[in-house]
Amino acid sequence: MNTLLLDSEDVDEYAALGDVIDAVEQAFAAFERGDTQMPAKSYIDLPRYNGDFRSMPAYLDTGDWDAAGLKWVNVHPDNPADHDLPTVLGTMIYSDPETAFPLAIMDGTTLTMKRTGAAAAVATDYLAVEDASSLGIVGAGVQSYTQLRAISEVRSIEEVVIADQDEDRVRRFVETFEDEFDVRAGSISEAGHCDILSTVTPVESPIVGLADVGEDTHINAIGADAAGKHELSDDLLLEATIVIDDHEQCTHSGEINVPYGEGTLTDDDIHAEIGEVVVGAKEGRTDGTGITVFDSTGLAIQDVAAAHVVYDRASDAGKGLSFDLVGAGDAAQ
Amino acid sequence: MNTLLLDSEDVDEYAALGDVIDAVEQAFAAFERGDTQMPAKSYIDLPRYNGDFRSMPAYLDTGDWDAAGLKWVNVHPDNPADHDLPTVLGTMIYSDPETAFPLAIMDGTTLTMKRTGAAAAVATDYLAVEDASSLGIVGAGVQSYTQLRAISEVRSIEEVVIADQDEDRVRRFVETFEDEFDVRAGSISEAGHCDILSTVTPVESPIVGLADVGEDTHINAIGADAAGKHELSDDLLLEATIVIDDHEQCTHSGEINVPYGEGTLTDDDIHAEIGEVVVGAKEGRTDGTGITVFDSTGLAIQDVAAAHVVYDRASDAGKGLSFDLVGAGDAAQ
Repeated sequence: MNTLLLDSEDVDEYAALGDVIDAVEQAFAAFERGDTQMPAKSYIDLPRYNGDFRSMPAYLDTGDWDAAGLKWVNVHPDNPADHDLPTVLGTMIYSDPETAFPLAIMDGTTLTMKRTGAAAAVATDYLAVEDASSLGIVGAGVQSYTQLRAISEVRSIEEVVIADQDEDRVRRFVETFEDEFDVRAGSISEAGHCDILSTVTPVESPIVGLADVGEDTHINAIGADAAGKHELSDDLLLEATIVIDDHEQCTHSGEINVPYGEGTLTDDDIHAEIGEVVVGAKEGRTDGTGITVFDSTGLAIQDVAAAHVVYDRASDAGKGLSFDLVGAGDAAQ
Repeated sequence: MNTLLLDSEDVDEYAALGDVIDAVEQAFAAFERGDTQMPAKSYIDLPRYNGDFRSMPAYLDTGDWDAAGLKWVNVHPDNPADHDLPTVLGTMIYSDPETAFPLAIMDGTTLTMKRTGAAAAVATDYLAVEDASSLGIVGAGVQSYTQLRAISEVRSIEEVVIADQDEDRVRRFVETFEDEFDVRAGSISEAGHCDILSTVTPVESPIVGLADVGEDTHINAIGADAAGKHELSDDLLLEATIVIDDHEQCTHSGEINVPYGEGTLTDDDIHAEIGEVVVGAKEGRTDGTGITVFDSTGLAIQDVAAAHVVYDRASDAGKGLSFDLVGAGDAAQ
């Protein structure tokens, strides 16, 4: 019995965004129903290398299918400058829950981008205005590309405004999409006055204020992934209807962690977890909802759900490298 | 930059036992010095499949070298009967701590056997009589082979007694080793009266009593890996000098977990953690020590230490399959 090895190009090709969005939506629903197991992330801190490792195991049962796996991922901010490597490098092991056989090992870096984009798309589908056609993005790094691709799956995006201080990154973004969208560089405020705004920066001081967004803008707050980081001002958060992915993660390391830690924002200011909205236990957007914020920290079940899609599609297509990793064909005890 | 894929045969070939024993000994010493990071194992319980997954991340710094990695492993007892697969299937990701790049992905099943054998060898080296030449083994499963190989690295074993109710397994063991050792089938008591005894069974009721062992026998208690399991009787444990690998793991799921949970055996009955013995903070065997027991539950740092050896040797030899998993060569942000 062999394990399928899928590199970053395979993951990019077989993580069909429509399917990944569906799978992540099912994962959020399973989470709300209690049909998931997701131990807290374990951290290994390596101050000596200015980095850390994170272990993210999970199991989910959507009713239609179940899946298990683990992502081993890191944050090493010095990698680009010192080693010509990305800050984040992920490896995903996707396992059959019935036997624990490692069905696939795949690049977890591309997978992370896909499942993060998919989460924003799920939230956008429930929280943005129905006829949303404009998308603003603050931060033109790798995540911005997946935000546009994924959100386009749930709304007919025509106009795109990209805001970033780095002109090269903005130009690259514009060139990539100018044939498909009415895309232009703009200020944070111009991006924020689109129907939908995604913020994908690692800042520790808010860069988007209440005056920077439209009165019905839906915001996907993606950038904050550690204590101390936030992109949106407190007055914007307090004005908005806030939906989070997971209470523990968001209050410790998500967009709301700083004002929550200071007591400026409390549980009363949190409208719902996204799973509650997906299953209908809490409302999504209705008339008069106003500004909405989705605080996305990224759950291990999203990785497993996305890996499920990649593995199914790649193995159906006969792609990937088949490798007898564990020698289990003849090793039964 | 590529990741090296190492299958079970590669791991078997490059986990040179002498080197793995040295590395595991260094890992135990690093653990005692506080130069390791080893978050508690995370469990995913799947009663529906009568199985579980375990996530075991770790980092260690021996002073000479440091290493990081994660083992994703399981226990699915129905696998052999229902799926012709081993009960335990492990996958190890071995990462560069400086950049988090996944240097290698290797079979974790064979690795587990090697590092478990190596731990027994380290303990045996400090706790068995110096001139030990006989080894008894209770349980003729896959672990028994590695016990003999590993312990032979630290003592000149000549005589081997193998005890198991399954005659086929006993015959296979004897046939494997009869050219190298004076090896024979025997009772548990005959095995226990050797200079060294390793117990490698999954029993929940003790099968080795005080009368079954010699007055200076060193026992490696390997089998217990979950609450409720133990192989040695309470009176034997209370008579012996007990060395454990880790207090938390041993008292929850190791050989001592049942009498410890019942209060029959307390912290006063535990002589040391193996790391304390290795660094010299606690004594190993001296004149008049009598019976010794090493309670081995298996630490994540052992896996990382063994993977360090496998990766170094296999990459030096140019072996394994080089695979561009994460596409990091051209993906720096």
